[in-house]
Amino acid sequence: MDRIGIEELIRELSTLDYQKMYNNDFLLTWEKSNDEIAATFTVAEILRGMREQNISSRVFDSGLGVSLFRDNSTRTRFSFTSACNLLGLEVQDLDEGKSQIAHGETVRETANMISFMADVIGIRDDMYIGKGNTYMRNVAASVQAGHDEGVLEQRPTLVNLQCDIDHPTQSMADMLHLINYFGGVENLAGKKIAMSWAYSPSYGKPLSVPQGVIGLMTRFGMDVLLAHPKGYEVMGDVEEVAARQAAESGGSFSKTNSMAEAFAGADIVYPKSWAPFAAMEQRTELYGNGDFDSIKSLEQELLAQNKNHMDWTCTEELMATTHNGSALYMHCLPADITGVSCEHGEVEASVFDRYRVPQYKEASYKPYIIAAMIFLSKMKNSADVLQKLLAENRSRVL
Amino acid sequence: MDRIGIEELIRELSTLDYQKMYNNDFLLTWEKSNDEIAATFTVAEILRGMREQNISSRVFDSGLGVSLFRDNSTRTRFSFTSACNLLGLEVQDLDEGKSQIAHGETVRETANMISFMADVIGIRDDMYIGKGNTYMRNVAASVQAGHDEGVLEQRPTLVNLQCDIDHPTQSMADMLHLINYFGGVENLAGKKIAMSWAYSPSYGKPLSVPQGVIGLMTRFGMDVLLAHPKGYEVMGDVEEVAARQAAESGGSFSKTNSMAEAFAGADIVYPKSWAPFAAMEQRTELYGNGDFDSIKSLEQELLAQNKNHMDWTCTEELMATTHNGSALYMHCLPADITGVSCEHGEVEASVFDRYRVPQYKEASYKPYIIAAMIFLSKMKNSADVLQKLLAENRSRVL
Amino acid sequence: MDRIGIEELIRELSTLDYQKMYNNDFLLTWEKSNDEIAATFTVAEILRGMREQNISSRVFDSGLGVSLFRDNSTRTRFSFTSACNLLGLEVQDLDEGKSQIAHGETVRETANMISFMADVIGIRDDMYIGKGNTYMRNVAASVQAGHDEGVLEQRPTLVNLQCDIDHPTQSMADMLHLINYFGGVENLAGKKIAMSWAYSPSYGKPLSVPQGVIGLMTRFGMDVLLAHPKGYEVMGDVEEVAARQAAESGGSFSKTNSMAEAFAGADIVYPKSWAPFAAMEQRTELYGNGDFDSIKSLEQELLAQNKNHMDWTCTEELMATTHNGSALYMHCLPADITGVSCEHGEVEASVFDRYRVPQYKEASYKPYIIAAMIFLSKMKNSADVLQKLLAENRSRVL
Repeated sequence: MDRIGIEELIRELSTLDYQKMYNNDFLLTWEKSNDEIAATFTVAEILRGMREQNISSRVFDSGLGVSLFRDNSTRTRFSFTSACNLLGLEVQDLDEGKSQIAHGETVRETANMISFMADVIGIRDDMYIGKGNTYMRNVAASVQAGHDEGVLEQRPTLVNLQCDIDHPTQSMADMLHLINYFGGVENLAGKKIAMSWAYSPSYGKPLSVPQGVIGLMTRFGMDVLLAHPKGYEVMGDVEEVAARQAAESGGSFSKTNSMAEAFAGADIVYPKSWAPFAAMEQRTELYGNGDFDSIKSLEQELLAQNKNHMDWTCTEELMATTHNGSALYMHCLPADITGVSCEHGEVEASVFDRYRVPQYKEASYKPYIIAAMIFLSKMKNSADVLQKLLAENRSRVL
Repeated sequence: MDRIGIEELIRELSTLDYQKMYNNDFLLTWEKSNDEIAATFTVAEILRGMREQNISSRVFDSGLGVSLFRDNSTRTRFSFTSACNLLGLEVQDLDEGKSQIAHGETVRETANMISFMADVIGIRDDMYIGKGNTYMRNVAASVQAGHDEGVLEQRPTLVNLQCDIDHPTQSMADMLHLINYFGGVENLAGKKIAMSWAYSPSYGKPLSVPQGVIGLMTRFGMDVLLAHPKGYEVMGDVEEVAARQAAESGGSFSKTNSMAEAFAGADIVYPKSWAPFAAMEQRTELYGNGDFDSIKSLEQELLAQNKNHMDWTCTEELMATTHNGSALYMHCLPADITGVSCEHGEVEASVFDRYRVPQYKEASYKPYIIAAMIFLSKMKNSADVLQKLLAENRSRVL
Repeated sequence: MDRIGIEELIRELSTLDYQKMYNNDFLLTWEKSNDEIAATFTVAEILRGMREQNISSRVFDSGLGVSLFRDNSTRTRFSFTSACNLLGLEVQDLDEGKSQIAHGETVRETANMISFMADVIGIRDDMYIGKGNTYMRNVAASVQAGHDEGVLEQRPTLVNLQCDIDHPTQSMADMLHLINYFGGVENLAGKKIAMSWAYSPSYGKPLSVPQGVIGLMTRFGMDVLLAHPKGYEVMGDVEEVAARQAAESGGSFSKTNSMAEAFAGADIVYPKSWAPFAAMEQRTELYGNGDFDSIKSLEQELLAQNKNHMDWTCTEELMATTHNGSALYMHCLPADITGVSCEHGEVEASVFDRYRVPQYKEASYKPYIIAAMIFLSKMKNSADVLQKLLAENRSRVL
């Protein structure tokens, strides 16, 4: 993208109503207006364009981005660091293993203690149903109170790096990939996307990816089909959101228990394993009771249950049934690839390989999406600031 | 604080004699002159004011702050990182678990190897009596020698992030809180502060907090009372410092074995658990001998001994006996709160809750105190540099 | 070094042919031309000079240096961070323990996922013969492909922070130390350097240091002697490189099984333990087969074999036989010092102590060598950029 393209996007941005994002968190995509979602994509594209043109988008001369990962992570960790660094923030990780968080210490206390100079907080907490998003809201309320009470000079804003409900940095990156792949958001109306469960030999993968996808992709007039074996339901609340949004956008949201039906004629397929919501709820309860023996048996049960559905896998045969036999294959990575990372997995190696480059591009949007979320939450008037950066034309690399 | 307030503080700073802080370490508050202590508070306030006014105080275009934590830490770690980042230094942690420090490797070698581009080194080493502060002095001597011998181009300065003797970044933050709470250092003379032991179900908490408090607060004309059960004595050397300073400042330093006596009429109370000095000395010796069985029995003994003093807890009843029933409650956090973080602890939940906001403010001074310590040790003329930063008026956030 | 000295070095640099280093990796010193090696030393000296003169060499306004350490490290980790920081890059460590790299995940995928905003990648992978350097080349090919395919906007360049074959950042720092110690590279021709095996009670030290030394020092007309007991051979390929380079440079490369012969009349001695190449190959194979019992027996065998050569140690007696009894003693650190870090080791304590300061200086070049490698690989015309930095004259520390 050249400077003229960037200027055009800044003009587009200035027509959108995104002021409420300032000093606000990004926790669930469906809490954001259409304009706010569009602004996020636009700022992400502008930041990408500026970096391509070697124009610095460093808006912080100093400042901290605090990260808290309650689950292993490579992609999201690197994306968050990249995003912070692009804007001038240094990342300080809250490694709960190395910290002195006392037994019984309130979220309010920890949140304030790490935030004296924090501009943004990114949290990944996706392991327990009912916990992750709630925790993020507690942190947000705590730093808001801290700011109101005069403890914190600035109010750090939160970015949800994956919770039990949504994975907005993933679904937004996925969506930006679709927008670019199909040559514009206007080309997505009427496209059929199959978000499908797929078999994996591992257990308990988070539901936030399928939920994030149906909770976002239904906004753009697409026909969104959620497919899974019986028993692998996702959260009902998110399905309601998806249905409502599909109706509003002129698209549709439907469900099926057949992978074949989902793939037939699809323009986009997203086959991915996840754990059943009901089982995850049960697991959270067992965990709360410290009943680790029952957790172990539950795991065995779920793995056995998975094995009943080994035919839910993305084969070349299935791919041939998609629109023109050439649906776009998507995955949040890492994928369980049959014969590569496991004996039987979510996808056949030849399908995965064929879509390797598009998948990497899909992933490449995440740092920019995160940077855009931070930018819009910390800059009072993002369009003006971007215009200023463009005018200053400071080199990122000398 | 507005620009005029900041300018006034810079003028105040320029009347103080703090030149010896340049290229020097901050290891014990009582090694610093009254002017140097005042300069540290003043620079901390100026840096806070500048940050509030969105004026960048980035004085390093590149540079490293090395941290070494030999004990878990959240608050101090985040404070050190925040301070370094505010001034433009990136933190590189010396994680001894991930390092290749050889068996028998000298402090001199490690200190030089990590310091080729280090501007500041922050160390927390508070676990063993006679060890932490000694280690810091060995590091300081090593980098001084390295600089003198031409190995190191710059001499990194040290900040004591807590040792066996003092916790200067804590006590200085505590003191700056008092100065602000009571509306100026001049209002502190004659105030009664009770540094009191309190019961905790955990074992072996460092002595550096009570020692740091009596070693600093006695400089300002206050009546400092140290209260603890028999057997919970702190280091005699620090008590001598406290007594001498109290005499010089027109205040007093006294001791009691009654919490009630300490609280009666106090303006400020600081109830906090710590381990007995004699037991900690014994533990250090056992550790040196690798006598882990005896360490275990000692721990059991000490926990049993603690249990004899469960009445040493900060209750509403005790708080009612303080000056106007409204003494300022202080804690370095995290506190052991009865019914919250433990069954019986240092403080009743209602007392803690009532003083939650002031405590968080107390903690909020630590990053600025550390930044001020670094600033004064690395800038040749701090007042001039601050004036220059103010004149440049570069935005911290665009 | 003053500004005039720096300007002279920049002029020198501009006479060298180093353009192929741009957008390229630094994996083995013998893949680089004499001009490229000279350019690396020159840029390192310039960067050191500029830092001494408090001139900022920050060429990145934002950017990431990714580090991957598959072995414990202090010196190299701090050197890499220091180098990145000096140029304006923030380090993000890829801690494979905390990452979500899937079983069977390809190098290609990981390499792309961490590189969306990476400018440089530093890797230490020295544990297994045939693995480390190969892994680095796979990463390099992956990010090159990622860049070619449009996934990565920039192509991060690699720095070999130690592999199974070479340790270029070490050998280049060693060499720059020699250049400075002997007053110029022109004074090294005809000097005798003894790279000698020495006894250590530990097992399996990497071969990359002796290989790196003979693979580099043979380029400068020196008489390079490799000494070790029978059975402690290094890689034949590297010996061939050494022989060829010695012939080209007018020096010599020879081997001996006598430490006494190696030291006799030497100007420089580098006594250091390493594992036998054949045994390390065997170990790699056993590891590949998961045959951990055989690995254990192999370790015991090797330790026993080491014990047959406890007389291979750098004594005062041996040092007295060197040129004028005053050869320069070198070590990559940490050393196994007799009576200090172990009962019997590589060197007598008095020898080590006498050469402590030169050794620390030796180590002090590593951050600048790494910075020079990064600089030359990321700047299109290094001489021009350095001239620009000098002209701008921005202070590193205000």
